[in-house]
Amino acid sequence: MRLSEVHEDELVRLALGRLGEAAKGFLVGPGEEDAAIVEVEGRKFLLTCDALIEGVHFRREWCPPPSLAWKALSASLSDVAAMAGEPVCALISLALPEGLSVGWLEAFYEGLKVAAGEFGVAVAGGDTVCSPGPIALTFFILGECKRPVLRSGARPGDIVAVTGQLGASRAGLSILERYLRFHRARLEGDDERAEREGIKGLSLGDVEALVEAHLRPRPRLREAKILAECGATAMMDLSDGLALDARRMGRASNVKLTIELGRVPAHPSAEKFARMEGLDPLKFAAEGGEDYELLVALPPEGLDEAKGRLAEIGCPLTPIGFVEEGEGAFFVGPGGEEVKIASPFEHFGG
Amino acid sequence: MRLSEVHEDELVRLALGRLGEAAKGFLVGPGEEDAAIVEVEGRKFLLTCDALIEGVHFRREWCPPPSLAWKALSASLSDVAAMAGEPVCALISLALPEGLSVGWLEAFYEGLKVAAGEFGVAVAGGDTVCSPGPIALTFFILGECKRPVLRSGARPGDIVAVTGQLGASRAGLSILERYLRFHRARLEGDDERAEREGIKGLSLGDVEALVEAHLRPRPRLREAKILAECGATAMMDLSDGLALDARRMGRASNVKLTIELGRVPAHPSAEKFARMEGLDPLKFAAEGGEDYELLVALPPEGLDEAKGRLAEIGCPLTPIGFVEEGEGAFFVGPGGEEVKIASPFEHFGG
Repeated sequence: MRLSEVHEDELVRLALGRLGEAAKGFLVGPGEEDAAIVEVEGRKFLLTCDALIEGVHFRREWCPPPSLAWKALSASLSDVAAMAGEPVCALISLALPEGLSVGWLEAFYEGLKVAAGEFGVAVAGGDTVCSPGPIALTFFILGECKRPVLRSGARPGDIVAVTGQLGASRAGLSILERYLRFHRARLEGDDERAEREGIKGLSLGDVEALVEAHLRPRPRLREAKILAECGATAMMDLSDGLALDARRMGRASNVKLTIELGRVPAHPSAEKFARMEGLDPLKFAAEGGEDYELLVALPPEGLDEAKGRLAEIGCPLTPIGFVEEGEGAFFVGPGGEEVKIASPFEHFGG
Repeated sequence: MRLSEVHEDELVRLALGRLGEAAKGFLVGPGEEDAAIVEVEGRKFLLTCDALIEGVHFRREWCPPPSLAWKALSASLSDVAAMAGEPVCALISLALPEGLSVGWLEAFYEGLKVAAGEFGVAVAGGDTVCSPGPIALTFFILGECKRPVLRSGARPGDIVAVTGQLGASRAGLSILERYLRFHRARLEGDDERAEREGIKGLSLGDVEALVEAHLRPRPRLREAKILAECGATAMMDLSDGLALDARRMGRASNVKLTIELGRVPAHPSAEKFARMEGLDPLKFAAEGGEDYELLVALPPEGLDEAKGRLAEIGCPLTPIGFVEEGEGAFFVGPGGEEVKIASPFEHFGG
């Protein structure tokens, strides 16, 4: 069997099964949570890494080096945020094609400096090697947390809520890909194809907001700590889309999550984009990945305080569902009927 | 300018220059040492990562998955050893071609379990993504150390010594590459080419020892702690070959290292291999990389104790030179004349 036929979550189980004893000895071990927790003399440290591959997670044609540095660092820091932790420092592993220009690398590091400063994390070092393949980079983050919030702590009776708005990153990716095709068609003088690929029905402001959401996500570090203080029982970041990640929280917590599709906070520009494409905007938002918003379960009595405190720092918190005994995660329509939401991140190859 | 035109050490300086403030705040920061040191409330932690790329650092045809896991983990742990540290745990970032078999990945994790058990390090997790390119993996190690030995501490009057024997890994790599060509020629029925590529003049025992040295290096974790206890002033691991790494120690310590080529402990099987190839065995050993032995500077009065204690655990320690005021690292022949040694690891693309 090829790796392309295997679900991403299956690969994690495969690793755990084979590693056996080598994976033991952690408060929270490999594959179970957004970050591993290791305790050293009473202090809890978080460890996480996130790999981005050119041609899979980004394209050089539409991802300028400073945006790549920002996005890659944000994605890794988001895993620390998901556990209500604080980053200590980052290491970076870079595999770069020999033919890449030195200017590209300089621009990458300049961008990394800005991003690291923005999120208050220091860059402790790394490894740079040449590669016959695409650009591949991994950020490793060492973080700390006093009271980590796991994805496995949701309890029946909890409210399910989400920070920010969803779907913008997915729409931004579509726009970037389409713009590339538009640009290529123009270069090839194929006006008819260029016409088809053009972005119509969106203002420049919409396009900018969506592209920005995709290239420059922000880890919800402060928000996560506030949610933890407001009694969050379970938390994770939305990297693979609400549809898939909610199922993961349900499975980890051994409960059933019911999410009312009508309450999912779709990003207004993403909503316009989805309509333009003839897609259901709420499904679009629920499927879309790389929003790096927080999915959180918390007791109903904590909701108002959490909403209020997050509003103070400009972050919406929207209740979208509830936790019950049972298993899985289900989306329901206005009449309580189940709505199937596909996840675009089901397979390793996807 | 392309990256292939830039010296590896230049890339490190480029990163440091661009990162600026983002790279500050460490006892020992990015690119200066084998691992970065970060202090958290009085405890010193080591952070390091090491990337291996298929087609650059190994080939799937001659590197079975368990050996790859072993070698990659060893190379990273060797950076922790180089600072006299102890590993706490490892994270792994894996970029894998979609078409790779699940069996490959299973064998890799099985091998990782064995290696992690052997070196007493736990695997805390990681990230696995698909890639249109070659297999790329990075191990990230969190370690601890009470009194790190830096590469920058060598002082005039110190002895320069090296653990183990050198050149075996380089010879092993040549044999693996040659066997691949031999095998291909045989497959293509080109007996004349196969004859040329065949390994002659080496016993099966020699071949096995050299291939084992390349595929299954061992980080000198215990040895490094003993050397630290015996007063080592500077230490680093030999990953890019004695010729290049000695220059790095000289530069970091702001001293001049003189190494007597005749005292370099060449591995006996590597010596046979080099002679067979018509090469100078000592130069071959001094140039060769990936030995993961320790290069150490220590005061003369610490040498006997260090030799004795390392001998007890089966590790030779050979004095090969001395430290003086000045700069650089020089190899000298029997009459004290300088011998130029090229490094095969000069360029990013090499």
